[in-house]
Amino acid sequence: MESLVDLIARKRDGKELTREQIERVVAAHADGTFADYQMSALCMAIYFQGMTEPETAALTQAMLRSGEEIDLSDIPGSKVDKHSTGGVGDKVSLCLAPLVAACGVRVPMISGRGLGHTGGTLDKLESIPGFSVDLDVPTFRRIVSEVGACLIGQTALLAPADKRIYALRDVTATVDSIPLIVASILSKKLAEGIDGLVLDVKVGRGAFMKSAASARELAAALVRVGVAAGKRVSALLTDMSAPLGRTVGNAIETREAIEVLRGGGPEDLVAVTLALGAQMLVLGGAVDERAAGEERLRAAMADGSGARLFERMIEAQGGEPRVVEHPELLPRAERLEPVRAASAGVVAGIDALEIGLSAVAMGAGRTRAGQAVDPAVGIELCCRRGDAIEVGQELALLHLRDQADPEAFRTRVRGAFAIADEGAGPAELTPLIIDRL
Amino acid sequence: MESLVDLIARKRDGKELTREQIERVVAAHADGTFADYQMSALCMAIYFQGMTEPETAALTQAMLRSGEEIDLSDIPGSKVDKHSTGGVGDKVSLCLAPLVAACGVRVPMISGRGLGHTGGTLDKLESIPGFSVDLDVPTFRRIVSEVGACLIGQTALLAPADKRIYALRDVTATVDSIPLIVASILSKKLAEGIDGLVLDVKVGRGAFMKSAASARELAAALVRVGVAAGKRVSALLTDMSAPLGRTVGNAIETREAIEVLRGGGPEDLVAVTLALGAQMLVLGGAVDERAAGEERLRAAMADGSGARLFERMIEAQGGEPRVVEHPELLPRAERLEPVRAASAGVVAGIDALEIGLSAVAMGAGRTRAGQAVDPAVGIELCCRRGDAIEVGQELALLHLRDQADPEAFRTRVRGAFAIADEGAGPAELTPLIIDRL
Repeated sequence: MESLVDLIARKRDGKELTREQIERVVAAHADGTFADYQMSALCMAIYFQGMTEPETAALTQAMLRSGEEIDLSDIPGSKVDKHSTGGVGDKVSLCLAPLVAACGVRVPMISGRGLGHTGGTLDKLESIPGFSVDLDVPTFRRIVSEVGACLIGQTALLAPADKRIYALRDVTATVDSIPLIVASILSKKLAEGIDGLVLDVKVGRGAFMKSAASARELAAALVRVGVAAGKRVSALLTDMSAPLGRTVGNAIETREAIEVLRGGGPEDLVAVTLALGAQMLVLGGAVDERAAGEERLRAAMADGSGARLFERMIEAQGGEPRVVEHPELLPRAERLEPVRAASAGVVAGIDALEIGLSAVAMGAGRTRAGQAVDPAVGIELCCRRGDAIEVGQELALLHLRDQADPEAFRTRVRGAFAIADEGAGPAELTPLIIDRL
Repeated sequence: MESLVDLIARKRDGKELTREQIERVVAAHADGTFADYQMSALCMAIYFQGMTEPETAALTQAMLRSGEEIDLSDIPGSKVDKHSTGGVGDKVSLCLAPLVAACGVRVPMISGRGLGHTGGTLDKLESIPGFSVDLDVPTFRRIVSEVGACLIGQTALLAPADKRIYALRDVTATVDSIPLIVASILSKKLAEGIDGLVLDVKVGRGAFMKSAASARELAAALVRVGVAAGKRVSALLTDMSAPLGRTVGNAIETREAIEVLRGGGPEDLVAVTLALGAQMLVLGGAVDERAAGEERLRAAMADGSGARLFERMIEAQGGEPRVVEHPELLPRAERLEPVRAASAGVVAGIDALEIGLSAVAMGAGRTRAGQAVDPAVGIELCCRRGDAIEVGQELALLHLRDQADPEAFRTRVRGAFAIADEGAGPAELTPLIIDRL
């Protein structure tokens, strides 16, 4: 049998590893006989040589089987989750999960925290007083069964191999590899006991994938490997060149998600929620086609059933359910500081990356795992791309703590807005839903 | 300033690292802030992206400066070393160093041990009763000064960064990278305090470099980076498709090297010794051209001055100097078992790799660092390429311990000989000295 070093050399030389070889590597990494320095060298070899689909599927399965798999098969009905590759202002999960559950498809969702310029669902949920994302699996199962949706954090028991390998990739410049991304995402999602999965692959400045081509490649690989694992899987490519919705921050994003649940909210956020939700209802068998799914979701916004389900979910997870009717109960920053336009024209672009990094600098996010975030601070956008702007008009409102010095933030956020001459004509905007796979 | 992870990403993306960036990485690896798993990922990125000559020179210097540098500048005369990339039956250092020193150029040589199919000078020297390769630097300096040649092992103080990085490369499939090989070899050699260096880059089945093209690439890089470091450096490409000389083992190779010192020995071993030695004498300024150097070396063989110098060196290093006149004092195996030809014909090839691995299996070498070797065992070749052979004629003699079962070794060693039909005509032999750089 080849040594483990031989297996690194095989991949380095562009040869395909067998399922058994990949299982040996993952098992040996778990028991310490394949050291971190060997795994990181292998990840770098994979970065350069890629992986075939059978290799990616084998890696996904090996990482999945490194831990527990939640079995929800005794809970009646379809279980469908959504995963986003991360963006700025992406609070979709908070309104999507209750709406889909209100339409009869259960949503067992294990989410992540914000890191760098991208926000995290768990941080947003924790802005709700008392809300707990650290539930054990029996509690998670019970809430999925009784309420229909539950949103928790990654437990140490699910796909621990992914946790260890991801931590290594993060510090060895090997994050940006499609087969490794696919295995990381799917090993965790397959451990949730789901029947179907909708992937929201973000594209643009504020996304991990900067180009539609690379996003499409990732989405296609995710769908194929997910389907090979026996799940119903779809993917949408959605625009992340500008922030989604009008808020970037934790409590202010939660508030915006509640607006959507109550039939309001900004157009782009509603559109992405409907597109993803309709696909989830199709995969879950609740409707035959997307149009019918969108109609059901709109009804759940209009009749308040999505909002009611969110209240029950918040209550089940220890939080204050009255925030749905009284969003003023969410944490609020002491000061609102306007960012005003320095020139007149048309908003040609709002740089999602710069807005995301500004929010992190203001305390809404973190630059390394484990840092605390401030739930109250953030950035509220007062205009959208295509809006005509006059000198001195408010572009954004900064939600700040009293002691913060707003000047540096103001300059930075102002710089994120590209203001074009009025005569330049309408900017060519990327469609919000770029593609469906 | 870029983070250390950014530097891995730079190299991964094919960009050049600056001297300062390379120094930061090596220093951070030494103090633990750049972890082994980061260094191994960087080595794999270097494997794929290579390094420019300035990068390789900077890595060499950074590794050199990670430890002590021996200063021999107060010892009069030129100091020139030889380094071989390793082969089977390569006992050249043992006869070369005393001969060159006898011709007036000092040879401060830090050598290695055998690993895998390649033998090591230190293991061969240790077959001399009492001989010590573990001398401290002051003793090394004294022997170089008083005797003219000293052969010792790598000390922990010289280029410790290379030691750590090489140990990582060995278990992460990143050995086979020309810039990393160059930096590893030269950082150690430059630490010896030499003025000049002759490199013997071996080519063929029994060598690290299997093709002349890759060996030439390595040799050229070694010469350029060595010259850039201010040293006189030359390289020879020499054939390692068959073992060098007629012996593979420790004591039997030492015995063969002594034969050369005393004016005998096999033709190919003498030829390589003369070629390398003449170049060392040229670099050391003892002669103006190679031909004159070869003449001086032949004289030192004929008049016994090389043998006398080896005796003094052995004595200075604690060994039994009488082995030079009485090689029967070297350890001897109890049994000599012939390996006989199964068919008649002409010896078309003797596979150096297979002979080397057979000797390891017999106990003459090691499969992992730290294993003990048996000085007495080995393989003595009884024919050379081109020899006509009859059925039952001795191809080789196995030097074995009493308890060893010779049958498996016999079969394996017999298989290393390619016997061609007599009518096939003379085989096209690679020249022994393939190229000079």
